[in-house]
Amino acid sequence: MKIAVDAMGADFAPDEIVLGAIAAAREYRCDIIIVGDEPRIRQILEKNGAGNLPITVHHASEVIEMTEQPSIAIRKKKDASIVVATRLVKEGKADVVVSAGSTGAAVAAALLGLGRIPGIERPTIATPMPNLTGTTVLLDSGANVDSKPKHLLQNAVMGAVYAEKILGILNPRVGLLNIGEEENKGNELVLDTYPLLKQATLNFIGNVEGRDISRGTVDVVVCDGFVGNVVLKFGEGLATALMTLIKREIAAQNWFLKIISALVLRTALRGMKKKIDYAEYGGAPLLGVDGGFIISHGSSKAKAIKNSIRVARDFAENRVVEKIRQSFSKDGEIYNG
Amino acid sequence: MKIAVDAMGADFAPDEIVLGAIAAAREYRCDIIIVGDEPRIRQILEKNGAGNLPITVHHASEVIEMTEQPSIAIRKKKDASIVVATRLVKEGKADVVVSAGSTGAAVAAALLGLGRIPGIERPTIATPMPNLTGTTVLLDSGANVDSKPKHLLQNAVMGAVYAEKILGILNPRVGLLNIGEEENKGNELVLDTYPLLKQATLNFIGNVEGRDISRGTVDVVVCDGFVGNVVLKFGEGLATALMTLIKREIAAQNWFLKIISALVLRTALRGMKKKIDYAEYGGAPLLGVDGGFIISHGSSKAKAIKNSIRVARDFAENRVVEKIRQSFSKDGEIYNG
Repeated sequence: MKIAVDAMGADFAPDEIVLGAIAAAREYRCDIIIVGDEPRIRQILEKNGAGNLPITVHHASEVIEMTEQPSIAIRKKKDASIVVATRLVKEGKADVVVSAGSTGAAVAAALLGLGRIPGIERPTIATPMPNLTGTTVLLDSGANVDSKPKHLLQNAVMGAVYAEKILGILNPRVGLLNIGEEENKGNELVLDTYPLLKQATLNFIGNVEGRDISRGTVDVVVCDGFVGNVVLKFGEGLATALMTLIKREIAAQNWFLKIISALVLRTALRGMKKKIDYAEYGGAPLLGVDGGFIISHGSSKAKAIKNSIRVARDFAENRVVEKIRQSFSKDGEIYNG
Repeated sequence: MKIAVDAMGADFAPDEIVLGAIAAAREYRCDIIIVGDEPRIRQILEKNGAGNLPITVHHASEVIEMTEQPSIAIRKKKDASIVVATRLVKEGKADVVVSAGSTGAAVAAALLGLGRIPGIERPTIATPMPNLTGTTVLLDSGANVDSKPKHLLQNAVMGAVYAEKILGILNPRVGLLNIGEEENKGNELVLDTYPLLKQATLNFIGNVEGRDISRGTVDVVVCDGFVGNVVLKFGEGLATALMTLIKREIAAQNWFLKIISALVLRTALRGMKKKIDYAEYGGAPLLGVDGGFIISHGSSKAKAIKNSIRVARDFAENRVVEKIRQSFSKDGEIYNG
């Protein structure tokens, strides 16, 4: 098992990326190829005593910045770390890529470098989200922002494979994200998607609403990438805001209650933070491309990268790409083979 | 000031609606006309000693159920409480309607009963959402689920009027909800909307992301009704889930910490709940129709109805409909007159 880690392009690159790779190499004992500015990466490795770990460094001289137009940058910068890391997977030198660079660059690099699985029209980002009883997979969460009904159907099938293989949910419940539960509700896209999902060989439970995402009553939530991305980021912001509000409420109490609260709440908040923190979940796989590709949060620190590498390992070990390939015939008809 | 309250069609109708009306009549001293099943309403009023309050009852023999197709039901049931309440405003017998019935029925009743303000193409629901420093208005949150760029532009103008007149925010910051901050990001709808907002006489701060909604860095967030509705309900569900998680974390502690936590946290959680509870905010106005119409949550209990009546009073007192009318010429060109 070899995991290619794109060390550049993220908010805290390359330091936090390399630290995450070191932690993962220690904990998961998988081989890691760190791709990026070799001298800088070696420096961080040496400083952290990573000499005996199964880590190699693969130099890449360029970086794709967050502000660049991804499709153009990917074509122009052939030695960008994300492009080189993807190439390693294409050439069979690595099993899966982990990148915390811009989502657009990741999608473009994967599409150009790995291509799509035959039959799949658009790749999709499957983001695991915590709910009251476990995890809900939300997809698409940002790869394809003008989806057609067929894309959503394909997302549903890929999401179900992911939920089964990675989250271990047998016969996952698939829901269509909508503004009401009734079949006749929604915009054009979901109205046209509903019958496709109903006919597919899926455990389709019908329309679900925004409030169902955190409830634990649905395992795979299917939506357009625009909606999914807004939901994901809104959830992040709202959770942060709520934590801040609780802390403020506590700070407003008298000194005695304040001290007691701080002691007592520390455990509770830490437990909760662990449940809702994206860093604990690691990356979100880009599904539909012909190779393993895990997208980590742009603000990933070492812990998030470490967990993304764990997701990448599980993704490759469970052969998710192969399972998706088997679920689609070449013309995109789903045959759940 | 007369407020027509639709007593029927909501989850806890008519009991909680009437109790809310009683509380509002006591607290805000505005005249209330409760519309619905007269014998039942009178019974609740008598039981609660509301004899001396400025409340009258207007009988309506029909109810529109949540499961009915709104546009058909509104035309068929001419004596439905929501239709009758709207008619009272049309005829000048009331200043504004409050309804906790289905959103679809509310939009249909308002469109048919009041019509649109000249120049406005689609009505929009403006939902106030708590943020870290105050309130953000999200619109559209469910009236129009297949929006066009012009609709979003009109929403922006109406949202700015609402933020200024009801929330007291001078020169409100208007943001376009998107998946990134850059001007070239997004789906077709937002890409086409951006230049319209940029040209309008608005304090347009550009694209905002999901995480900005709770941050307090934007006052008016403009989006399509499908996206807005999903965001709103997701926020409701996530906040509830997070509260449940905190309570669970506390319950998992030992008995001593559990007792202390319960005592200490009660205040903090109550404070937080007050900040994020829709019942505290009351209803969301339906903007763009030619009369006051406040939509309250379908699960509204007395407190939410009482607060919706307060919003309705502020809405009428601040003549929001008139201000919106002044902002649009008859052909829909915005002239901010």
